[in-house]
Amino acid sequence: MATTKHPLYIIKIGGNVIDSSENLYHFLKDLTAIKADKILVHGGGKVATQISASLGIETQMVDGRRITDVETLRVVTMVYGGLINKNIVAQLQRFGTNAIGLTGADGNTITASKREVKEIDYGYAGDLDNKSVNVESIEALLQAGFTPVFSALTHDGDGQLLNTNADTIASALAVALAKKYDTTLIYCFEKKGVLKDLDNEDSLIKDIDKAHFEQLKTEQVIHSGMLPKMDNAFSAIAGGVSAVIIGHAGDLKNISKEKPFGTKLSN
Amino acid sequence: MATTKHPLYIIKIGGNVIDSSENLYHFLKDLTAIKADKILVHGGGKVATQISASLGIETQMVDGRRITDVETLRVVTMVYGGLINKNIVAQLQRFGTNAIGLTGADGNTITASKREVKEIDYGYAGDLDNKSVNVESIEALLQAGFTPVFSALTHDGDGQLLNTNADTIASALAVALAKKYDTTLIYCFEKKGVLKDLDNEDSLIKDIDKAHFEQLKTEQVIHSGMLPKMDNAFSAIAGGVSAVIIGHAGDLKNISKEKPFGTKLSN
Repeated sequence: MATTKHPLYIIKIGGNVIDSSENLYHFLKDLTAIKADKILVHGGGKVATQISASLGIETQMVDGRRITDVETLRVVTMVYGGLINKNIVAQLQRFGTNAIGLTGADGNTITASKREVKEIDYGYAGDLDNKSVNVESIEALLQAGFTPVFSALTHDGDGQLLNTNADTIASALAVALAKKYDTTLIYCFEKKGVLKDLDNEDSLIKDIDKAHFEQLKTEQVIHSGMLPKMDNAFSAIAGGVSAVIIGHAGDLKNISKEKPFGTKLSN
Repeated sequence: MATTKHPLYIIKIGGNVIDSSENLYHFLKDLTAIKADKILVHGGGKVATQISASLGIETQMVDGRRITDVETLRVVTMVYGGLINKNIVAQLQRFGTNAIGLTGADGNTITASKREVKEIDYGYAGDLDNKSVNVESIEALLQAGFTPVFSALTHDGDGQLLNTNADTIASALAVALAKKYDTTLIYCFEKKGVLKDLDNEDSLIKDIDKAHFEQLKTEQVIHSGMLPKMDNAFSAIAGGVSAVIIGHAGDLKNISKEKPFGTKLSN
């Protein structure tokens, strides 16, 4: 009985929104205009890299993933959990959204396990599984009228904070909460959506299902950077998420329209 | 009908607990042992000063109060709201306390106004009044089973975070929540309590009422550093707080005993 479920939007923003106070202002205003329940998930890697540099801590990345040693964990705890999260929350309050900023440790909302050391030691990086999200805790916050704002941090339940990919957190939230809500997962980034031709914003693919995606993969139309995002998105849909939208943060205001924005992925 | 109210402990810790991981471990374990509803409030000035120094930002203090310029506000947002708050929350989760870390912006729990510039410009420092605390919001969190952990940050409701004294936050929470709860305010610091002789821990004053306090003030038995703390405490009692305890963080485990610990201030 999917129709009896309340709609819930899980919206992930990345650096292109966070790094520009003007973009962030408009985005948070547009977010407030969404009347349904919503959850915001944010990264903040660029600011973390800047603060690390100011503190004389070298940032090490492998395949786009940050190596989180003890010092780097301190920095991301400060930057994601403090600086970025609290400024977003204060801005949302200004617009009338009763935001509450969280890491996975807060309210025990998301537990993770420290990534196993194989060829590479990612340090204090957290991986999620299908028991990571505490649905009851998040439901209690939503029912009390709060809008959760998650930073890219989780905990292991044993006192250890863990750096966790924001895309993965958003996806895990959308899947876990799909049991109770009609969830739509929205990835906001710097392009209009999935493009056939990266240099042409008019080549937007508006709708794509799994079969079409597999075909475009075979034809190598979808470029490499977009592949893991889309694989994740289709996994989320397979896990019960109603739809995934990949689009430009500046277009969020169109979310309630019949043809909302960006690329809509569905089964 | 004070007896029908649920007991609620508002406990403030300072640097002596936060700066030692061993002290913090034991303190948070003892806090978990308190079965009643509780709220923790923490500072973190020493760590903020260290991180500021590492970032090349000079810390300016006037009469023990930090001048919070734009750069310093960024640091305290990182350190209080992120680093210290989230590590405390993760530790409390480990012990089974369902902590949720907050600034006053989160859940719109505490609003403040930027301190007026008179002789000194304190910058982004927030002052509280008797409408600052959002009782409904905090009550919703307590009723959902969360233990709020407040860092020394508030907001002005218009998007601006403000650095706010942790003692003042604790006192304002205790007074505002006294309408709904039987509140006890506990200030944990590095001494056994209010001492007649600062060099002699055996000179502890176990109980003190307003008249006795005025007498000791006149006799100049109470030293200058303790005066504002005690003035605040008696204001809190006048505002409806059942009792204020000033004592050593290491003695919190005795809170449930008939003669708990430290100095108990009451009317």
